Amino acid sequence: MAARRCDSALVTGANRGIGLELVRQLAEAPRPPSLIFAGCRDPAGPRAKDLKDLAEKHSNLVTIIRLDTSDPESIRQAAGEAGSRLAGRGLDLLINNAGVNTPGQLRDTGMKDMVDVFVTNTVGPLLVTKDFLPYLQRAASQPGSGVGVAGTTPLVINVSTLLSSMEKCPETFSMAPMYSYRASKAALNMLTRCLAEEFKKDGIVVTAIHPGWVKTDMGGPKAPVAVVDSAKGMLRVISTLTDKHSGMLLDWEGSSIPW
Amino acid sequence: MAARRCDSALVTGANRGIGLELVRQLAEAPRPPSLIFAGCRDPAGPRAKDLKDLAEKHSNLVTIIRLDTSDPESIRQAAGEAGSRLAGRGLDLLINNAGVNTPGQLRDTGMKDMVDVFVTNTVGPLLVTKDFLPYLQRAASQPGSGVGVAGTTPLVINVSTLLSSMEKCPETFSMAPMYSYRASKAALNMLTRCLAEEFKKDGIVVTAIHPGWVKTDMGGPKAPVAVVDSAKGMLRVISTLTDKHSGMLLDWEGSSIPW
Ligand SMILES: NC(=O)c1ccc[n+]([C@@H]2O[C@H](COP(=O)([O-])OP(=O)(O)OC[C@H]3O[C@@H](n4cnc5c(N)ncnc54)[C@H](OP(=O)(O)O)[C@@H]3O)[C@@H](O)[C@H]2O)c1
Ligand SMILES: NC(=O)c1ccc[n+]([C@@H]2O[C@H](COP(=O)([O-])OP(=O)(O)OC[C@H]3O[C@@H](n4cnc5c(N)ncnc54)[C@H](OP(=O)(O)O)[C@@H]3O)[C@@H](O)[C@H]2O)c1
Repeated sequence: MAARRCDSALVTGANRGIGLELVRQLAEAPRPPSLIFAGCRDPAGPRAKDLKDLAEKHSNLVTIIRLDTSDPESIRQAAGEAGSRLAGRGLDLLINNAGVNTPGQLRDTGMKDMVDVFVTNTVGPLLVTKDFLPYLQRAASQPGSGVGVAGTTPLVINVSTLLSSMEKCPETFSMAPMYSYRASKAALNMLTRCLAEEFKKDGIVVTAIHPGWVKTDMGGPKAPVAVVDSAKGMLRVISTLTDKHSGMLLDWEGSSIPW
Repeated sequence: MAARRCDSALVTGANRGIGLELVRQLAEAPRPPSLIFAGCRDPAGPRAKDLKDLAEKHSNLVTIIRLDTSDPESIRQAAGEAGSRLAGRGLDLLINNAGVNTPGQLRDTGMKDMVDVFVTNTVGPLLVTKDFLPYLQRAASQPGSGVGVAGTTPLVINVSTLLSSMEKCPETFSMAPMYSYRASKAALNMLTRCLAEEFKKDGIVVTAIHPGWVKTDMGGPKAPVAVVDSAKGMLRVISTLTDKHSGMLLDWEGSSIPW
């Protein structure tokens, strides 16, 4: 069976940081997907400038879609819009990248902080996946799609973090308490596990990836990994995924992280 | 060093199910705590009847406290009330038992369901623990308290579930998808890990316990474990906990469950 190439992708939170770089590298790949949806919650705002420049440069490939992952109605509308653009084709790759963090010391962590971070980091990816599921399923039913062959099976990638690892918590806690963030990403890992089980029958693979500690607004200037290298590593790992990796948490270099 | 006995306890969600039985067994123990706070979100309502009967029977031991774990203001007030009753003494045992579940098939799981379950099952235990922390710390500083000696160290018990285990998800998923519930309890496990690290310096142990699949309103009539046996097992496990168990997930028979 000939390997089917990734012909369509959606990246959420694509206007800066890791999401923007993922879109850039997808668009500048030797054989880029012909439809790259770049989700952005405020395409008209100042924070979308870099993404707009990129989309202009690759106007035949990149489509900016308004998508606020904390807002169910926005997600529904984005799925509708992407559906029209796909015009009968499936979605091969969904990267749930949009995320937020907060300082997250115990004393600073209250109801609002816990819920806000959970809504964007955990519920958002679930609702995006649900609303884009018909297109992922369509991709899974296309000729050449096969869950055992890397690069041919539709993928859902949930961008998680090393800080989501319960096992590693004693090592990582003192430098990054981040209660709300850790709770949200541990919950996201659980959704990754559940969706991996649920989508087995559909031939859709669901994998969580830790992008490294990356120099972005979120990662800060002290982070050791450049955003270019993180995105490159993630896309390399993504290109190797098969059903064996469904429900796992991997890092940007392909190593498995314990729960 | 003489073993200090558990002299004060709070159980949340104590008006029915496992919580009610925990309060009963604490009150009817050979050497009961002299102050047992039974948290209940609606002490005046019909669902509090059994708890009120129990509190009447043990009026010297059991104090019902209004405590809605989804409401920060209610938690604050409950902590204030418990503080007055403790009158300078510490709190030896906090059992974060209150919890909710929903059917939780993927198609039924939306924003509201995810957030509501998270608020009660995850944020509630965090806020209760934060607001009762001064009393736990006071207990930790009392003579005879020692984190290495079972029965003498203040404990926070988060009632979790086997369904929170990522490792076990492939085995448990098909009979109990429960997306919102699983996500909330995985997040609760993460908080258990974080609080265990944070409270090391205070000499307070934080452990998650799975009560078994228990015949209650939540567990349903097909559950194999009687509520009496679950509560008995949990209290036995609780009596053996030391700092070595802090940050772990144990079941009601004392076995460790993988994340
Ligand atoms: N950087 C690291 O070291 C690191 C480490 C581990 C994991 N991660 C994960 O990697 C992902 C990307 O992080 P990053 O470092 O690139 O962060 P970043 O520089 O802060 O960028 C976050 C992106 O998410 C978007 N976003 C936030 N909330 C959103 C919402 N409700 N709807 C739509 N978009 C939203 C932001 O859009 P706006 O511009 O509109 O705010 C922005 O595009 C996150 O999931 C993060 O948790 C990062
Ligand atoms: N039963 C099982 O098989 C099983 C298995 C694994 C884990 N668990 C866990 O064990 C714990 C107890 O479960 P159960 O079987 O006893 O459940 P249950 O019979 O449904 O009782 C739940 C208790 O929690 C209380 N509660 C719910 N929301 C609350 C809130 N916002 N504030 C205060 N109290 C609240 C309920 O009070 P109201 O009467 O006011 O609703 C009730 O007292 C839960 O954390 C559950 O997740 C149970």
